[in-house]
Amino acid sequence: MKPSIPKGTRDFSPQEMVKRNYIFDTIRSVFKLYGYLPIETPSMENLDTLMGKYGEEGDRLIFKILNSGDYLEGAKDKDIKELGSKGLTKYISEKALRYDLTVPFARYVVMHQNDITFPFKRYQIQPVWRADRPQKGRYREFYQCDADVIGSPSLLNEVELIKIINDVFSRLSIPVVIKINNRKVLQGIAEAIGLPDRMIDIAMAIDKLDKIGVGGVAMELEAKGFTKRQIDKLWELVKILGTVAELIDGKVQSRIKFPDTSFLTKSGEQFEPSVIMGEGLNEMIYIGSASIGEENAVEKNCRIQLDISLARGLNYYTGTILEVKVDQTKCRSEFSSSICGGGRYDDLTGVFGLQNVSGVGISFGADRIYDVMEELNLFPTDVTTSTKVMFVNFGDNEAKHCLALVDKLRRAGISSELYPDAAKFKKQMSYADDKKIAYVVFVGADEISKGIVKLKNMASGEEKEIPEDKLIESI
Amino acid sequence: MKPSIPKGTRDFSPQEMVKRNYIFDTIRSVFKLYGYLPIETPSMENLDTLMGKYGEEGDRLIFKILNSGDYLEGAKDKDIKELGSKGLTKYISEKALRYDLTVPFARYVVMHQNDITFPFKRYQIQPVWRADRPQKGRYREFYQCDADVIGSPSLLNEVELIKIINDVFSRLSIPVVIKINNRKVLQGIAEAIGLPDRMIDIAMAIDKLDKIGVGGVAMELEAKGFTKRQIDKLWELVKILGTVAELIDGKVQSRIKFPDTSFLTKSGEQFEPSVIMGEGLNEMIYIGSASIGEENAVEKNCRIQLDISLARGLNYYTGTILEVKVDQTKCRSEFSSSICGGGRYDDLTGVFGLQNVSGVGISFGADRIYDVMEELNLFPTDVTTSTKVMFVNFGDNEAKHCLALVDKLRRAGISSELYPDAAKFKKQMSYADDKKIAYVVFVGADEISKGIVKLKNMASGEEKEIPEDKLIESI
Repeated sequence: MKPSIPKGTRDFSPQEMVKRNYIFDTIRSVFKLYGYLPIETPSMENLDTLMGKYGEEGDRLIFKILNSGDYLEGAKDKDIKELGSKGLTKYISEKALRYDLTVPFARYVVMHQNDITFPFKRYQIQPVWRADRPQKGRYREFYQCDADVIGSPSLLNEVELIKIINDVFSRLSIPVVIKINNRKVLQGIAEAIGLPDRMIDIAMAIDKLDKIGVGGVAMELEAKGFTKRQIDKLWELVKILGTVAELIDGKVQSRIKFPDTSFLTKSGEQFEPSVIMGEGLNEMIYIGSASIGEENAVEKNCRIQLDISLARGLNYYTGTILEVKVDQTKCRSEFSSSICGGGRYDDLTGVFGLQNVSGVGISFGADRIYDVMEELNLFPTDVTTSTKVMFVNFGDNEAKHCLALVDKLRRAGISSELYPDAAKFKKQMSYADDKKIAYVVFVGADEISKGIVKLKNMASGEEKEIPEDKLIESI
Repeated sequence: MKPSIPKGTRDFSPQEMVKRNYIFDTIRSVFKLYGYLPIETPSMENLDTLMGKYGEEGDRLIFKILNSGDYLEGAKDKDIKELGSKGLTKYISEKALRYDLTVPFARYVVMHQNDITFPFKRYQIQPVWRADRPQKGRYREFYQCDADVIGSPSLLNEVELIKIINDVFSRLSIPVVIKINNRKVLQGIAEAIGLPDRMIDIAMAIDKLDKIGVGGVAMELEAKGFTKRQIDKLWELVKILGTVAELIDGKVQSRIKFPDTSFLTKSGEQFEPSVIMGEGLNEMIYIGSASIGEENAVEKNCRIQLDISLARGLNYYTGTILEVKVDQTKCRSEFSSSICGGGRYDDLTGVFGLQNVSGVGISFGADRIYDVMEELNLFPTDVTTSTKVMFVNFGDNEAKHCLALVDKLRRAGISSELYPDAAKFKKQMSYADDKKIAYVVFVGADEISKGIVKLKNMASGEEKEIPEDKLIESI
């Protein structure tokens, strides 16, 4: 049997682990600095906790777990062929792997509402699983690093989350552009094209612009009953881009015109930029101006860009949405996927029975950040951890003598090991080389009788004899 | 919908996370001190990587993942009712959640053998999943913290792993007893009762002694074709206990007698303690004497006990086996499950195509260790992390002013937050209380105009006015 691992999953070697931990530690330390507290939730959630929260495609991409024991028992009165895969699932699976950290967090908040002081600022760094087609930068198991505030409608939370994004990517030396939009603006657009109830359909479709292009999105919307005219109008509206400064100056707003008289509101009046669209634009002005104010100067490290075509592929967002990409105007990266994203959700805990609690959060994609840092060669060169001292094994008697010395070094907090076998000298030294061990100690019968050790500095090659009891201070 | 989580799984609150991380950090730092390097493997493995490695019961307890898409497609020519759950699984599931960290590690070693320098000392701290019946101290998702050496047959590795056990539990202040045995001794017993090929059956059965008692084990063995006489003889042999000192003195060996002439070897000769049993006993003598030697004095923190009835419920062990329990002679714990276990496996990489590579490892059960530490009240009281400084929010203008101050504190590495809403003063203060925030800062319109802030020490209740630019040094 030739072993392999499921496609879209990966093993991590010690060298990779050190780099991954560098990313996790950076993100975690920023989260802590901003007053977020850690939680963890189970890898498995009940299937009905997850289903229906991520759109139709999300439902399909959720990994379901087969019930244990005689799982067909639950379907014994059914015609399985007739049910088909789609119909059978609910009889043979009641658990699934989490798809993101936001829905489990909402479920957590509702279950533990009596123990939580609101607003609740939590961070969570755990893997999620999606049955997506694996490709460059897209894995079936990957880590999300989330920070969310729940129980506060204040836009200051959005401002702080943008600061966190700025801090994290500054520390990691990745230049980024933060694209922001607001679901309320998309709602206004849905109204503008005469389909006020179809905002989610519009958002889900235009979210795929990067993947399937304008033609693909148009086809998807046509299949959902949108007319060609409505789709043309949609393009005209979503292609509006601008800087936050232009938004603050009112220049973006002036680009949002609705001259076409064929788009009428239900009451028959010509469409005017709606109340809700105005709200969305005003929110972006607040967030943008607080984030790029003189004092805070987020713009120094990351650009904020308004992008009306930004939609985010998740059902639950209701206000601000944002996405972070490598700023390709500032570095030579080929990496065009988003490396962080998030937004505000006003009703997410509602489905679990807790009404009127608004939340907002962001999620860093650690695996994609890793790929970017590798591509741009951004990992610090001194990010390694290994054993500091290795004792060569010259045989059973010498080994027993060395064991006591190793113990002493460890008690002093020095990471040390004794090579476990009395292997050939060359093999032991090449082990020390490969593992990048800093010092090698030789203690043969001769050294034991003299009460000394030979210490070799592997970087300089220098060797010296020192008394056994001076070993710790020589390292 | 009232939310819940799958049985046997748990959410972890910030308070619990801090304690859990205390355990993980302790174990990780000891692993590093001994020269072990971290790796991680995917949560999902191919089903055929896992099946058959943990015994029949293990196979049943593995969580299988339903193939994505039209999973019934693979079984479309089959009579599903006839296949039944057992027969259908392989057509609708090809992945499973890992059951332990040892088998994935063996698979990792084989896949990456060309990049690894042997002996390979790795540690791995990740969750595993088992569809066991949940009960006190037994979860369906729990963390294992493993250290293994692969590619070295030396018993020094066993000695070092026992030292690691001693170090970890000393640092956590848990008194423990390490029970050791050796599969070679069990092999000798299998020979002694005339069934040299049935060692695994014997081990799997007596491993359940704690759960189902002598009667249950006897029934299981009878069902597998063992005679009553063989079972009686088995009890006589496995009830042998002793200290390591007694083993070294030869006292344990003298208790292993085979007077019953009805137990004959295949060649018709009376059974003598076999070569392999002798090997097993000698290995225990070596490990025991090196671990409890004068210099190393493992016994000070943990007792080592020989227990011939120790079997371990995993197929793959071939030499040393060990299990760690709370030492109930030294503390008032009700906790009788094992909190650490491990052993040597000579052939585990063989099934994946890499022969003649021996490995040995141990696994700490972090969740059970947590339960023990809670029961015995062993967590240090100063194990908390929270925001250090909170700014009260008096309204939009004041908040914007405070944002700049919060930024300064954070740049100085001080974990700080601004309360996001201009909520009632009392509500904001009780938030600071609940979150155990050390300092609260008040900046109203008056303070802004004077260029000062009011700083309250929440522990002492002391309040003082200080100039804005002296805030950092006052904290």
